[in-house]
Amino acid sequence: MQTNNGSAHSEYPSLNNTMLTDYYELTMADGYFESGMAEDIAYFDMFFRKIPDGGGFAIMAGIEQLVSYMQNLKFTDEDIEFLRGKGEFSEGFLEYLKNFKFECDVWAVPEGTPVFPYEPLITVRGPMIQAQMMETFLLLTINHQTLIATKTNRIVRAAKGRGVMEFGSRRAQGASAAVLGARAAYIGGAVGTACTIADEIYGIPAMGTMAHSWVQSFSSEIEAFEKFADLFPNNCVLLIDTYDVLKSGLPNAIKVFKEKKPAKMGIRIDSGDITYLSKKCRKILDAEGLQDCKIVASNSFDEYVIRSIMDEGACVDSFGVGERLITAESNPVFGGVYKLSAIEKNGEIVPKIKVSENTEKITNPGYKKVYRIFDRDTHKALGDVITLADDRIPEGDPFEIFDPEFVWKRKIIENYEMRELQVQIFDKGQLVYDLPDLDDIRNFCHDEIDNLWDEIKRFENPHGYYVDLSKRLWAMKDRLLNEHGKTLEHRD
Amino acid sequence: MQTNNGSAHSEYPSLNNTMLTDYYELTMADGYFESGMAEDIAYFDMFFRKIPDGGGFAIMAGIEQLVSYMQNLKFTDEDIEFLRGKGEFSEGFLEYLKNFKFECDVWAVPEGTPVFPYEPLITVRGPMIQAQMMETFLLLTINHQTLIATKTNRIVRAAKGRGVMEFGSRRAQGASAAVLGARAAYIGGAVGTACTIADEIYGIPAMGTMAHSWVQSFSSEIEAFEKFADLFPNNCVLLIDTYDVLKSGLPNAIKVFKEKKPAKMGIRIDSGDITYLSKKCRKILDAEGLQDCKIVASNSFDEYVIRSIMDEGACVDSFGVGERLITAESNPVFGGVYKLSAIEKNGEIVPKIKVSENTEKITNPGYKKVYRIFDRDTHKALGDVITLADDRIPEGDPFEIFDPEFVWKRKIIENYEMRELQVQIFDKGQLVYDLPDLDDIRNFCHDEIDNLWDEIKRFENPHGYYVDLSKRLWAMKDRLLNEHGKTLEHRD
Repeated sequence: MQTNNGSAHSEYPSLNNTMLTDYYELTMADGYFESGMAEDIAYFDMFFRKIPDGGGFAIMAGIEQLVSYMQNLKFTDEDIEFLRGKGEFSEGFLEYLKNFKFECDVWAVPEGTPVFPYEPLITVRGPMIQAQMMETFLLLTINHQTLIATKTNRIVRAAKGRGVMEFGSRRAQGASAAVLGARAAYIGGAVGTACTIADEIYGIPAMGTMAHSWVQSFSSEIEAFEKFADLFPNNCVLLIDTYDVLKSGLPNAIKVFKEKKPAKMGIRIDSGDITYLSKKCRKILDAEGLQDCKIVASNSFDEYVIRSIMDEGACVDSFGVGERLITAESNPVFGGVYKLSAIEKNGEIVPKIKVSENTEKITNPGYKKVYRIFDRDTHKALGDVITLADDRIPEGDPFEIFDPEFVWKRKIIENYEMRELQVQIFDKGQLVYDLPDLDDIRNFCHDEIDNLWDEIKRFENPHGYYVDLSKRLWAMKDRLLNEHGKTLEHRD
Repeated sequence: MQTNNGSAHSEYPSLNNTMLTDYYELTMADGYFESGMAEDIAYFDMFFRKIPDGGGFAIMAGIEQLVSYMQNLKFTDEDIEFLRGKGEFSEGFLEYLKNFKFECDVWAVPEGTPVFPYEPLITVRGPMIQAQMMETFLLLTINHQTLIATKTNRIVRAAKGRGVMEFGSRRAQGASAAVLGARAAYIGGAVGTACTIADEIYGIPAMGTMAHSWVQSFSSEIEAFEKFADLFPNNCVLLIDTYDVLKSGLPNAIKVFKEKKPAKMGIRIDSGDITYLSKKCRKILDAEGLQDCKIVASNSFDEYVIRSIMDEGACVDSFGVGERLITAESNPVFGGVYKLSAIEKNGEIVPKIKVSENTEKITNPGYKKVYRIFDRDTHKALGDVITLADDRIPEGDPFEIFDPEFVWKRKIIENYEMRELQVQIFDKGQLVYDLPDLDDIRNFCHDEIDNLWDEIKRFENPHGYYVDLSKRLWAMKDRLLNEHGKTLEHRD
């Protein structure tokens, strides 16, 4: 993969986003500083509660940008001056910010991993002020890219092996949504992007040939096609619906393909009934001996439309997918949250819980780890288990796990292998993680999804994947809830 | 308004986004270059077809970022090298890019203006290659900010004078969606943002006090409140739902308010039934003599939820609105398009039309202007009219305009004033527009919406605002359609 992080566009990965933080992170930070709690150690977990589109899993993405954010943390003199101007921060705190040095430990589930509700995807441990302040940008990058990777993977699975190209830049919610959306889409299985800078920065193959304006700019459609075939014989995908697909675009394209014999031939249909037109075009192309000519379609696709036209036998070789992918239109929010789980004072870890009338909003307390359990024979994932960090993890012995909501649904698993899902990213502020190549992330994602049962991949009503708690974590949660006058047992 | 464009964060406005362009813009550009058409003059219009959420109008936003993009256009040596590596661009074209100098004329409807389907919001005239290449970024910035300004304005109108604070950074689709989303939200009427950098760069008031983690970090809720009141007497909004709003949060807040007497008091409720809780809290606060204490609510709001709880008499003084605003969740795509409307060869303007089986996808040809027509007595907007640029615009005389779809719906208007909606932004690549201050844009937006009839502001089934064509434009469109074997008259 060609990357070009040294280019003028390295400003994208290396932007200083320190001030892209919610204002309350700073008021709280000042408060911790003034309360003498700056050096207390806090533990925060990032997790989510609901898989978008009612799907069976999400795909973790956005770690590389989180790393870049953490590495570039710095309050400039202008930032300090700006904050001083707000008139509510103490001078001691502003001095602290001036000398801010990132010192947290960070663990994260690697990009490309299928992930499930309630498991800690990222755990940050560090000085209260710092761990708190990560919240906004951490959520922003993980929520965005996880959303797009997850959505794209649904679309890719609907296309059943036909290529899906991300064509959405013009409808993305801002520049980073376009560029990093292309990155997330590639992780989720897209074969390329329309976004040129995403190729330049991240090596995601940029694709595309012509818009309707190309065809309109010439005095005739055939002249526009001939000119393009002359100039781009290795990328000769002609857009055939500017005037009329079957009466004009296709016959003109065929004439040009036969006359110019470009090495790579294709037609693109961007409007009308794709099933009908693609079948008709395929038949005519084949009858003309142009079996090598590919058919590209691009017309407001998502996984539902693609599944439907594939069921109808549409003859499409690849799909250009725009706005419904790049904004995850059917469900454009990934609701990741970042919650305090423990505070360490004088070496003792005090677990914290957030209670709520909404039972699904109760958090898992304590410093935790998460493991994926694989069947030793099939290598399929059986479920995940969240444990306390100091839980003894049995290596193959029978192991009892507890449903987090319905405690009578405990079970004992055997003949399994476990893999810890989080890896350490930062150790006291030092990067200790070797960021994987984007193609490796994409391949890893593909392989990990292969390890899931098909029932979990269903678009609607997928089988619920188990994310259970260890016995000790369950007992701790129950104890803390009892202290707040609530109990897990009463949930129904 | 305090702005700080000179800070380290001026990288946001001044990013070089030249390569944030669809790859096909570059293949077409190469094609125009090689075909000797580089210097032909093209006219493109940006317009949209559908108002999000079934609303009655959209709000133009994103021009400042478009200006910045156009001013920063430059292909670096690394960009040229990257493109050369793709192996399909001619050396002559790469040389052209190396010396690229923006030379277009650009007209745009100013930010904050209510806009309607099919009218040209932006018109670009310039060398074919350049005018074409603007497409991706132009659409991206206008689509994004117009979407968020439009959505925010719906939410603001639902809140009927209560402040709406944009709290969505963590759920935004990437960093620029957070920062520029905050900007667009402010244009649409939000009173502030949680996003600190949006205050630093754009002067949008940053707001916020504490998260649940603040309360959890202390050994008791009241200790957390006391500490905050000591530190932030001028911004003492206490989050009262960490444990139990009525049994714990509110009584503790009241105790602290009475004891510490902060200059600015408020409570924030972030979960549960806002109508019930806010009424109950208001009653208790008033009974305790705390009429000055404001109630802030923040729980998955949008215009529909706010309208509903306002109807129920919720006692909320201001709303924090997050994910449903910053992603325009109910309709997260603004479908602006950029279409070729004419080509100038040897001084002659040849109008171009895009025909389509979908009648709403047929474009308006030619070099055009758009005017808003105001009633001379009420100063309310009567409708807009799209004309050819060289149409004679009558100044108050009876003026005949044509419904673009139903031509028998022509009408003659009288007693009116007209205002040209587009202003010139660039003249042959030189900025000739004085970018307005953000607060001025926001005020302008507010005033312009005041000029619309209430029927157009309805959330559902608003009255359709008229966007008609001048007689000459209508005749040109009909002639071009006839040449393609279609006619306006046959549409039904």
